[in-house]
Amino acid sequence: MAEKTIRVGLIGSGFIGKVHSIAYGSLANVYGHSLPKIERVRLADVTTELAQTGAARLGWQEGTGDWRDITRAPDIDLVDITTPNYAHAEIAIDAARHGKHILCEKPLAHTVELARQMYEEVRAAGVVHQVAFGYHRWPAVMFAKELIESGRIGQPIQFRLQYLIDYALNPDMPLSWRFQKEKAGWGAIGDVGSHAIDLARFLVGEVSRVSAVSRTFIKRRPLPAEGDISFGVASYQDAKPAVYGEVDVDDATSFLLEFDDGAIGTIDVNWMAGGHDNEVNFEVSGERGAIRFNWQHANEIQLYCAEDHPERLNGFRTIIIGPLHPGAVPSLTVPGLGMGFTDAFLIAVKEMVDAITAGRPASPNFLDGLRACEVIEAVQEAAKERSWVEVKRSLA
Amino acid sequence: MAEKTIRVGLIGSGFIGKVHSIAYGSLANVYGHSLPKIERVRLADVTTELAQTGAARLGWQEGTGDWRDITRAPDIDLVDITTPNYAHAEIAIDAARHGKHILCEKPLAHTVELARQMYEEVRAAGVVHQVAFGYHRWPAVMFAKELIESGRIGQPIQFRLQYLIDYALNPDMPLSWRFQKEKAGWGAIGDVGSHAIDLARFLVGEVSRVSAVSRTFIKRRPLPAEGDISFGVASYQDAKPAVYGEVDVDDATSFLLEFDDGAIGTIDVNWMAGGHDNEVNFEVSGERGAIRFNWQHANEIQLYCAEDHPERLNGFRTIIIGPLHPGAVPSLTVPGLGMGFTDAFLIAVKEMVDAITAGRPASPNFLDGLRACEVIEAVQEAAKERSWVEVKRSLA
Amino acid sequence: MAEKTIRVGLIGSGFIGKVHSIAYGSLANVYGHSLPKIERVRLADVTTELAQTGAARLGWQEGTGDWRDITRAPDIDLVDITTPNYAHAEIAIDAARHGKHILCEKPLAHTVELARQMYEEVRAAGVVHQVAFGYHRWPAVMFAKELIESGRIGQPIQFRLQYLIDYALNPDMPLSWRFQKEKAGWGAIGDVGSHAIDLARFLVGEVSRVSAVSRTFIKRRPLPAEGDISFGVASYQDAKPAVYGEVDVDDATSFLLEFDDGAIGTIDVNWMAGGHDNEVNFEVSGERGAIRFNWQHANEIQLYCAEDHPERLNGFRTIIIGPLHPGAVPSLTVPGLGMGFTDAFLIAVKEMVDAITAGRPASPNFLDGLRACEVIEAVQEAAKERSWVEVKRSLA
Amino acid sequence: MAEKTIRVGLIGSGFIGKVHSIAYGSLANVYGHSLPKIERVRLADVTTELAQTGAARLGWQEGTGDWRDITRAPDIDLVDITTPNYAHAEIAIDAARHGKHILCEKPLAHTVELARQMYEEVRAAGVVHQVAFGYHRWPAVMFAKELIESGRIGQPIQFRLQYLIDYALNPDMPLSWRFQKEKAGWGAIGDVGSHAIDLARFLVGEVSRVSAVSRTFIKRRPLPAEGDISFGVASYQDAKPAVYGEVDVDDATSFLLEFDDGAIGTIDVNWMAGGHDNEVNFEVSGERGAIRFNWQHANEIQLYCAEDHPERLNGFRTIIIGPLHPGAVPSLTVPGLGMGFTDAFLIAVKEMVDAITAGRPASPNFLDGLRACEVIEAVQEAAKERSWVEVKRSLA
Repeated sequence: MAEKTIRVGLIGSGFIGKVHSIAYGSLANVYGHSLPKIERVRLADVTTELAQTGAARLGWQEGTGDWRDITRAPDIDLVDITTPNYAHAEIAIDAARHGKHILCEKPLAHTVELARQMYEEVRAAGVVHQVAFGYHRWPAVMFAKELIESGRIGQPIQFRLQYLIDYALNPDMPLSWRFQKEKAGWGAIGDVGSHAIDLARFLVGEVSRVSAVSRTFIKRRPLPAEGDISFGVASYQDAKPAVYGEVDVDDATSFLLEFDDGAIGTIDVNWMAGGHDNEVNFEVSGERGAIRFNWQHANEIQLYCAEDHPERLNGFRTIIIGPLHPGAVPSLTVPGLGMGFTDAFLIAVKEMVDAITAGRPASPNFLDGLRACEVIEAVQEAAKERSWVEVKRSLA
Repeated sequence: MAEKTIRVGLIGSGFIGKVHSIAYGSLANVYGHSLPKIERVRLADVTTELAQTGAARLGWQEGTGDWRDITRAPDIDLVDITTPNYAHAEIAIDAARHGKHILCEKPLAHTVELARQMYEEVRAAGVVHQVAFGYHRWPAVMFAKELIESGRIGQPIQFRLQYLIDYALNPDMPLSWRFQKEKAGWGAIGDVGSHAIDLARFLVGEVSRVSAVSRTFIKRRPLPAEGDISFGVASYQDAKPAVYGEVDVDDATSFLLEFDDGAIGTIDVNWMAGGHDNEVNFEVSGERGAIRFNWQHANEIQLYCAEDHPERLNGFRTIIIGPLHPGAVPSLTVPGLGMGFTDAFLIAVKEMVDAITAGRPASPNFLDGLRACEVIEAVQEAAKERSWVEVKRSLA
Repeated sequence: MAEKTIRVGLIGSGFIGKVHSIAYGSLANVYGHSLPKIERVRLADVTTELAQTGAARLGWQEGTGDWRDITRAPDIDLVDITTPNYAHAEIAIDAARHGKHILCEKPLAHTVELARQMYEEVRAAGVVHQVAFGYHRWPAVMFAKELIESGRIGQPIQFRLQYLIDYALNPDMPLSWRFQKEKAGWGAIGDVGSHAIDLARFLVGEVSRVSAVSRTFIKRRPLPAEGDISFGVASYQDAKPAVYGEVDVDDATSFLLEFDDGAIGTIDVNWMAGGHDNEVNFEVSGERGAIRFNWQHANEIQLYCAEDHPERLNGFRTIIIGPLHPGAVPSLTVPGLGMGFTDAFLIAVKEMVDAITAGRPASPNFLDGLRACEVIEAVQEAAKERSWVEVKRSLA
Repeated sequence: MAEKTIRVGLIGSGFIGKVHSIAYGSLANVYGHSLPKIERVRLADVTTELAQTGAARLGWQEGTGDWRDITRAPDIDLVDITTPNYAHAEIAIDAARHGKHILCEKPLAHTVELARQMYEEVRAAGVVHQVAFGYHRWPAVMFAKELIESGRIGQPIQFRLQYLIDYALNPDMPLSWRFQKEKAGWGAIGDVGSHAIDLARFLVGEVSRVSAVSRTFIKRRPLPAEGDISFGVASYQDAKPAVYGEVDVDDATSFLLEFDDGAIGTIDVNWMAGGHDNEVNFEVSGERGAIRFNWQHANEIQLYCAEDHPERLNGFRTIIIGPLHPGAVPSLTVPGLGMGFTDAFLIAVKEMVDAITAGRPASPNFLDGLRACEVIEAVQEAAKERSWVEVKRSLA
């Protein structure tokens, strides 16, 4: 075993920082104690007070108002970045230069250039790096990948994915960093679209070129009363500030994809999709079958194989994910019991720990993060220029 | 009542001609006898023998090998065209010039130019004309339209539709006219895509421009042993001819849409979508809600209205179509009993008869058919040119 | 061909009489003209005026206020009975004694004794007889039966069925004959429960004994303003009469079944099941698999066969009913297009015509109707006596 | 805060002991550190070796071969019992007598008499007690309860529940204690049926009387090679022992319920229900609406309220459970992310800790456990005697 203890520093104590904290704290309980010990050493946030409160709340030994107390600290092995997008790069690069392993939220950065730098730095530093594409290692998705790889649906020909969520439907939702290009880089296409693109690449392959259309339907939103507001569900409902700011990112983007291997695809992302609470659904149509998935029924895969049965006896079958499927958490001892969002992050953290322990690359990693950003940027450019755009793959 | 009897001539005795025949024959039984009497006078097919056999089989008084015996016959009021695409225009134009009302299968023609001529002719002739877009007047769709019109979901912002079917998945499926550009005009984008485009226009509005990607995955198919073969399910399974021909139309096309009113959209059509037996699903996302539909559960509409309930009590609700909804057939006396494909054509024929009786235009009519062809052609051009293409609307 | 023309007389012009009329009128159109010609000769209702209006409305040559003008008429071959339950027996017996074939609505009679007499009479008369159990010959159900017979799920072990509908949920629904024991025999257990029992018998086998619980939740309902009111959806909504009558039949009944062959079962019927528009769902669990069906998605069968795939690849598969499945109507030329309620009656009438033509018994017939009544009666007795009751099978 | 630290002893290290261990270990991580500290002090199993291995594997400080080292230990506050059913009572009674709080797996005991004694002892001892009915506090179920309590569906009239699972479908599944009356008390009706009964009581109210039918379809199963085998998925697949033993508990049981308040119900349990991986579905029909739930889509509730909308706009709506609903785990920060089985036990342990901290009774507690056993026993007697059986409620 490469390391007996992995000492973690977390940067950011918002809603997703909370979920990461839970994952670190629960890892050994869920996966057993042969894993290295995870020590939640230090949490950083924008002020010392926020950090200390967050540390106490989320189970970290101490808090700091300066994230360099994490990226440069000798008592930290792994840096976990859950800040708004614009802060990822500086932190990650500093961490890499100080030899830290890094788990970074998605999208990897808010510009392609920064994402490229981040990847170059972690590669040069030889550290383990992962992007928190939580759907990538989700057991049903891993199983879909396995089914495709094993040829059960033949060569993929068409990929269709929709990522629909409605947290931005309410026009009173305040203008958080998510609605500002300067801070987020992109809107829905970056926020939920990065997941979508990662799934496309994972399941079908590299994206050659894209064509896109984007819209910002709500062009002005109320400024938050003070500071930044993460996308809490309840917080904005009482806030009726008089001052409005401009939204300069997309609310909805749809795009076409051509994959290197000849398949085509469509992705729709929309964070104003009324009635949808985080619906991620996709289908891979292949030459001999198809696979469907919908996060709303996240423990099921639907599989159709044209050759499995005579036509009159054939149809999509619903396979319920259980302990026989790849990556299921150990608490899922019986098929049909179901996993949830908490488990998704456990699985991601487990991969990080396994990669560090084995001294191997993690997956999905910063190269995947970079590739997603490159596609996002191509999509944005395609929407702006009203033309097909080749995805520029750097560092290939 | 404008006419006591409507004397019909049918051209084409294939699978869809059969469905039309059934609709004419059943109309009075289903809708009652206050309707004009429908007389199934004459059926035309490519040979006299085929036509006579078809007439006997499908309940027509006589058969003819020359469709002009219908378009020009004094004892015919309504010409119904169910031939392959390439034959629509000549027949329809001849019929219009002889003052016949016309019900024509989709797509209206196999070129935009012919579709335009057809519309000009019927307009000039003052006859009633309809395109057999069977989903357009389907009660659940009509209800969706009503819900949108009444503002229940606010202004539409994004439209997503998939028309997935797998009859062409089998590479042994013979090279019927549907796979030949010269005869069909287009592939999946014309065959099932014309329905998709009509639904987009009906529910959201006119399409301004499109970007598209198309693929022909199976580039060669066995030539049918003799003559043309409509897309029977069983017919091709035994046929293993040695001679192959080239497929020069699309198997799958995905495209982006911009609507005149600012909404965006995505349509995927694929006739090699394994596991899908005629799945047409769509969603209209609006500023205050959404509507979903799936032909596989064709008697249901799913509706979400953001303002209907507090968030914790809200969600898509499944409304089961019944006699209280628009256009339900009279035999649907109790909600939940369900309508099927047979009913869809009854509804179309009923509209034709009502329009003729009232001396009003039918809906959807040749202008809708022309508009669909214009969008199809723009999609094809966009796919070929790899660029956004403005939809050219003639005769606006 | 035994008979060139089948001359039909219909008794009852209510909502289900309308559906039967449509089926007769459409039969040749749908199934082709090799079938005997169906002549809709005469319709009877309680008054001459009602009958004549109904005849004109529903496509019958003439109307009569005396049903004996049908059961005893030399120009009638087939008597179709769609009256309230209490009138079935007298009419059917008279029809049988005059040599008429009979299609009778369900339940066969409103007492077991009458059902038994009816069966004895048709058997003695040698006429063809059918009970209008519309789900029995529904293609998805016929396919389920075929799958069970062929051993695909092994020996059936447990049957579970729910027939849920909510037309009686509204306490303002008037006290039609359906709510009166004297006229209907039974409540929900007779009305929708007769279908449920027929399905149980068809799919699993004869019922040995039952235990049951029944409730009448709405004990008094407003009397209809005048005459009898069939269960129209809209009719009662304006009616607010001051006078109430007593409901003496069940609103909901649940019962346990033991089958002759060792399987067990549960059936729930409830006509106050809020939110359900005619939901009939069942599952047959067998020793090696299971079959599920739900009328709300009536063109699908869900099949699980334990041996078909390794466990991690297995699951229920959804088979979409199409032309390859038993009993599909000829207008269903492509799988996935869907059939509806109109088709269900076409199929029933087709069976009647085929049986008459071939001189063979129809299925389901009066013996099935009698058996259903025997089970209904056992259920009612079991509920009343709070004890298991052996199903008495007469004429076995 | 009543206690700063809760010191736990776990008895049993099988698959469910593992899930409990995970819950204790993750509690603070998920719910935050204002909770009392949970110390996983000691684990007992049937041998010292098993216990020590289990302790190391599941995160307990030490292991013991004698459970009295837990029930009687001064350093233990809370005893968690996850043994086979037959061992619950002796352990729980000993724990109560030594003043320990107790969390016990379901069913509470393998006889009603022992369950009653257990309840008497915990009541006398004044300790906090809970039965691990994991569905009871599941957020969607808690929400269903809230909806019913608030009158949204009116007075419940009919309850229908199915608990279907197929782990016993394979006849090679060894004869573990679950298949032996002496050790388990009951079969499917005790194992999964205890959950079903608890849900019925929780949602609708006390059960007055029952009628039932039971079957043992596989009457002999192979003896496990050595010792007892918990119901692992993979373990039995290679074991093909030559020696068989008799199964003397039920594989499937269906029963009718009368509730004190006049509602009726049906419950089907079957652990040979092919294709079902732990499906628990129920519906409560009320006088003005209905609520549906299915564990396979465990983060959804379907709600129908007759008065919410005009009939043509009404239908079941699917409410996705999120942070606004009762009992959601804190990691579910955004609606639609989903919870799973791991979360269910966290919620149960959280209730235990809250009750201990507040010095209040837990829910569901041993009285609920006793009541469930009383109903189970009544069901078994009803099945055996073929008669309705009054549920005897002791200690009321």
